[in-house]
Amino acid sequence: MNAFEVDERLGRDSELLTQIGLCELRLMKDARWPWLVLVPQRADACEIFDLTPLDQTMLTFEINLVADALKRATGATKINVGALGNIVRQLHVHVIARSEGDPNWPGPVWGFGAAETWADERKAIFTKTLLEHLNS
Amino acid sequence: MNAFEVDERLGRDSELLTQIGLCELRLMKDARWPWLVLVPQRADACEIFDLTPLDQTMLTFEINLVADALKRATGATKINVGALGNIVRQLHVHVIARSEGDPNWPGPVWGFGAAETWADERKAIFTKTLLEHLNS
Repeated sequence: MNAFEVDERLGRDSELLTQIGLCELRLMKDARWPWLVLVPQRADACEIFDLTPLDQTMLTFEINLVADALKRATGATKINVGALGNIVRQLHVHVIARSEGDPNWPGPVWGFGAAETWADERKAIFTKTLLEHLNS
Repeated sequence: MNAFEVDERLGRDSELLTQIGLCELRLMKDARWPWLVLVPQRADACEIFDLTPLDQTMLTFEINLVADALKRATGATKINVGALGNIVRQLHVHVIARSEGDPNWPGPVWGFGAAETWADERKAIFTKTLLEHLNS
């Protein structure tokens, strides 16, 4: 059995916010949307059904926890949840806050345009607010 | 409490294959990809976290069941799972079989080009194969 390590590209495109049970909670380096990624800390998982039933339940619990906190933290119109993995095969779940009129609304975020860098202060405020909502 | 009814647009864009526990399993009317949609039969659910914990667990179980069957039925490279809902707000989960070189690979299917009609025979074979894998 291999040890878990975050995929190189995923590691480059996102930064670690915290660990919650099964998953690393990471923030995408793209300020266009509040865009989180959950990465189950399991080596060699590509599809959700590669996880054990217990891990699947944990993942569901953590997706819901994060999605609910993200909605409350942002007041977004809709949370988008997706596990695609066509490029990065390591299992990871996107949780994105979408609002009417945001870039590519109502289309998906994946594959659209180029990432924009977070301003440090804005990122710090968003991260603090999110983590507060995760714990309440 | 309102009675569950499939959203009008979702009903127009997909057809019912079967019911499995919590969800209706529907086939999108777009032959470009083997593209399924799970619709939890619960009125007024928009976000996954609107469901009760038991329903969330059921939904996870059914997503995994369908994703695994779809992968075995198609031999696809990757299964894409997504709950977006930016256009149709009724909670629904896409489960799509993706293969290298398919339309818009490795980008997402949503919002890409125009739907193509299924040929009757091809659709019948796909549906039969999928349902067999769902039951095995």
